[in-house]
Amino acid sequence: MSGDSAPPPAMDGLTLSDAVPEAEFSKRVLIKSILGRPDKGAGLNGQKVRIGGWVKTGREAEKGTLAFLQVNDGSSPENLQVLVKSDVYKVSDVVATGTCVHIEGVLQRPPETATQQKIELQVSNVISVGTVDAAKYPLPKSKARLPLELLRDVVHLRPRTNIISAIARIRNALAYATHTFFQNHGFLYIHTPIITTSDCEGAGEMFQVTTLINDAERLEKELKETPPPSEADLKAAELAVKEKGEAVAQLKAAKASKKEIADAVSELTKAKENFSKLDERCKLAERFRLHGGIPKKDGKIDYTEDFFARQAFLTVSGQLQVETYACALSSVYTFGPTFRAENSHTSRHLAEFWMVEPEIAFADIQDDMNCAEAYVRFLCQWLLDNCYDDMEFMTKHVDKSALERLKMVAGSKFEKITYTKAVEILEEAAKVKKFENKVEWGIDLASEHERYLTEEKFKAPVIVYNYPKDIKAFYMKVNEDNKTVAAMDVLVPKVGELIGGSQREENYEVLRQRILDLDLPLEPYQWYLDLRRYGTVEHSGFGLGFERMILFATGVENIRDVIPFPRYPGRADL
Amino acid sequence: MSGDSAPPPAMDGLTLSDAVPEAEFSKRVLIKSILGRPDKGAGLNGQKVRIGGWVKTGREAEKGTLAFLQVNDGSSPENLQVLVKSDVYKVSDVVATGTCVHIEGVLQRPPETATQQKIELQVSNVISVGTVDAAKYPLPKSKARLPLELLRDVVHLRPRTNIISAIARIRNALAYATHTFFQNHGFLYIHTPIITTSDCEGAGEMFQVTTLINDAERLEKELKETPPPSEADLKAAELAVKEKGEAVAQLKAAKASKKEIADAVSELTKAKENFSKLDERCKLAERFRLHGGIPKKDGKIDYTEDFFARQAFLTVSGQLQVETYACALSSVYTFGPTFRAENSHTSRHLAEFWMVEPEIAFADIQDDMNCAEAYVRFLCQWLLDNCYDDMEFMTKHVDKSALERLKMVAGSKFEKITYTKAVEILEEAAKVKKFENKVEWGIDLASEHERYLTEEKFKAPVIVYNYPKDIKAFYMKVNEDNKTVAAMDVLVPKVGELIGGSQREENYEVLRQRILDLDLPLEPYQWYLDLRRYGTVEHSGFGLGFERMILFATGVENIRDVIPFPRYPGRADL
Repeated sequence: MSGDSAPPPAMDGLTLSDAVPEAEFSKRVLIKSILGRPDKGAGLNGQKVRIGGWVKTGREAEKGTLAFLQVNDGSSPENLQVLVKSDVYKVSDVVATGTCVHIEGVLQRPPETATQQKIELQVSNVISVGTVDAAKYPLPKSKARLPLELLRDVVHLRPRTNIISAIARIRNALAYATHTFFQNHGFLYIHTPIITTSDCEGAGEMFQVTTLINDAERLEKELKETPPPSEADLKAAELAVKEKGEAVAQLKAAKASKKEIADAVSELTKAKENFSKLDERCKLAERFRLHGGIPKKDGKIDYTEDFFARQAFLTVSGQLQVETYACALSSVYTFGPTFRAENSHTSRHLAEFWMVEPEIAFADIQDDMNCAEAYVRFLCQWLLDNCYDDMEFMTKHVDKSALERLKMVAGSKFEKITYTKAVEILEEAAKVKKFENKVEWGIDLASEHERYLTEEKFKAPVIVYNYPKDIKAFYMKVNEDNKTVAAMDVLVPKVGELIGGSQREENYEVLRQRILDLDLPLEPYQWYLDLRRYGTVEHSGFGLGFERMILFATGVENIRDVIPFPRYPGRADL
Repeated sequence: MSGDSAPPPAMDGLTLSDAVPEAEFSKRVLIKSILGRPDKGAGLNGQKVRIGGWVKTGREAEKGTLAFLQVNDGSSPENLQVLVKSDVYKVSDVVATGTCVHIEGVLQRPPETATQQKIELQVSNVISVGTVDAAKYPLPKSKARLPLELLRDVVHLRPRTNIISAIARIRNALAYATHTFFQNHGFLYIHTPIITTSDCEGAGEMFQVTTLINDAERLEKELKETPPPSEADLKAAELAVKEKGEAVAQLKAAKASKKEIADAVSELTKAKENFSKLDERCKLAERFRLHGGIPKKDGKIDYTEDFFARQAFLTVSGQLQVETYACALSSVYTFGPTFRAENSHTSRHLAEFWMVEPEIAFADIQDDMNCAEAYVRFLCQWLLDNCYDDMEFMTKHVDKSALERLKMVAGSKFEKITYTKAVEILEEAAKVKKFENKVEWGIDLASEHERYLTEEKFKAPVIVYNYPKDIKAFYMKVNEDNKTVAAMDVLVPKVGELIGGSQREENYEVLRQRILDLDLPLEPYQWYLDLRRYGTVEHSGFGLGFERMILFATGVENIRDVIPFPRYPGRADL
């Protein structure tokens, strides 16, 4: 880092241009505000600006008296071409990939022979440079196309690559589009809890949140520093209590003075305190010896000593909790992290991922499907309107059908078919096509079935609804046929299931019976039953796996590459 | 629940009005779209609409032939007055507080004698009713003003109260305002991780995330179902291996046929497999006996067997991680849940709370303060523009200065003073005013000091900056005086510290030395140092405690009441 934040006097005698708005809260203009103009910046010829960014590629020219830099600041996928002459700054210090430059200069049209650039920056003043030792930099120029797997080993630097930064902008756009869509429709954003004591889908796949192990380790350390009393010490302390007690009794019997008795009582109290302190420490030492410091009671872990006084987990879904708000404020949604402790190593699963879960009162399964369709199409249109350049990048470098797929989904009405109809179609297809999983009414559709429906049969998004009751969750509304529930899945090309949702069972008796039929305990669901006991309402909702939506949009193959900090078995970097 | 989603034929012969837009994705119009009009709905006289909501209060009139209901659907704090005649529906079934009604009717001007209402709904058709047994309902009419403490025992029903629903709308507005502010300024929303292996502020106050206890419990269950082999069994299996081995050796020595040898080898292999299976089970049983099933190695918990193959925690801040994106994409922010396992029972602390953390490249402490000021004022103005009715409610029922405070902050330039100046002011004040904590240069300002500055001295928001180095975190930029760091706190009336931020130390050597000086290990910070090693950039950021902002806006006293599902020691309902 050289220089400091107050720029030295300009060498070109110009003042900074007003034609490009300064990025508020930082000392520069965004490169997007130059290159993102309809004229690609050509009209800014002669304007002086200050920019900051990182060198994507740099090269020395004219015997080291000139450097050409491609500089990017993250505001768009496009780089600004920057020229640094050796009389302004040491050229060899700015050409390494990854170098940070904070510079001022004059925008000028490049010579006619230069092709793509409509404008470039002739640097007149260097405010600061963050250098890079190219030999050590993990993302050197020559490895600009490092495979995505290898980039996962440098999650702290990978946002500096073109692909991860494009994904970051697309992810950002989809997140803001999500809020905008639901806010525009009058939905309230509700923060459902991350730490939960409602174990609704089976604790096996949940992460436990605890301070018991910390407490045990603290205990171990403390026991090492101050060893517990020996048995002899404890016996002696116990004996002291007995003796002091007897002394009090004797004084009382002898009708000694009040003061004498009070003094003896005071000594007894002290002896008792001493004993109970030693006894407590012995018990802690014993606990540590027996269970490594984890408190136990009746052979089980004693969670009353844990932080929340009961066993707590990371949420697997905010749905049940957000229903409490839907049954009070009508249209709500949650958008937050959810967790699965599944030992899954596929390209489609993460231990930590984000979910969007709207919940709508006075809405049935048809309303639910309409909402899901409108939402997904809105997301696609939003990317076309706001991230076209990044989508072009993905289309060019990752998945040549990415843009086409977005346009198709934004523009087409979703096909809606019942599960029964879907099975009929698949059975028909199975006559000429081989599926690995057998198709028959009652099965949970496999990924290959879902992708056949959306990619081959309809070549469009498909919503399948009214699934067999036996393969779906207890809270889904039982249809009149008593065989199916009002559940729906949105299937899209490339990823298959993007959304799962349902109308919720709002009938108290039916819901209670479903819980019992599935051998679930009633007690943990009493609060959920209360929503049906008091002022029940027809309501529906769904969940969209946010990373799946990004996979769908970008065509990226592995879910670990579309979240900034992926968590999966064996890995949680940073 | 009566009726079904297809409404029965209308009794009034009218069709639903187009004058009020239907809430998409649900079968009704929002009450806000009636009462939120400038004319309070008066102009909709004669229009037929369908609404849904919950009865706030209801009463029977005219000998039970008529019910007056105040119905709310969460879209605004205002209730629609609804009239149900006994020839349309059983009046006694709809008057209980909490009853859900989904109804159609004709909007009409109430008689002149009725005061507040400009319009009311004369019900012609009841689509469905979710009844309430008033004797059992935890939020009965008579207890409409249940104290907030008691409402915490019914977190699943409390959003049906006026105050919690108003807070939910304000919270929603502040969340969307947050996204809008940063998106408008070109910041990218980055999802920093919830589960982290970077323990940056001391593990003592962090929640541990683990599957070890689950695994141990599974092991215990399994050992109960299938007890481990006895020592005799294990010995026998070991002996079998020895015997089969000898048999193979003998056959080989005797130059037996290939088949004979192969058969004997196969038997040996089986014996070995059997032994190692039994041995493994014995070891598991031993592990369980010794440490309650928690794997240990060299006397310590063996975290290589945990889900992430190392110790993992819930994040206390996304700052360090989001810096990786700021040092690549310039202007970013994170907005998500953060956690503290502090055993704190105050009205200002939660174990799970939300933080907004922007991080800006090419920005110094001045830029940082400007951003914090602009953001907080934007939030205040947003509430004035979008939640005036809810803010009026809070002002009337909770804190009579709430609206005034918002207007003051939205409209005033923040005072900016150095820490040194703040201490001078406080020392001067201490001559006439008693502080509980002594004031002198070097102390961390106490809450009473902060509130004096903002509430009494300046009667406006105050930003204090350039704090003593010794009381601040290692990553803050050391100023040229080498005594202070470029840190800043935003103090506001009512809550004191609302925001804490700093310019980050971007100099590799200085940062490294700071880590060493504070006796922190270097290894876990290598990735953080990399950001300074390669293309370092001047950058700054801050964190806003989202619930503190809601406390500030609403005037609510206890933080447990401004988050939907509060988590604190001993409590994590739902």
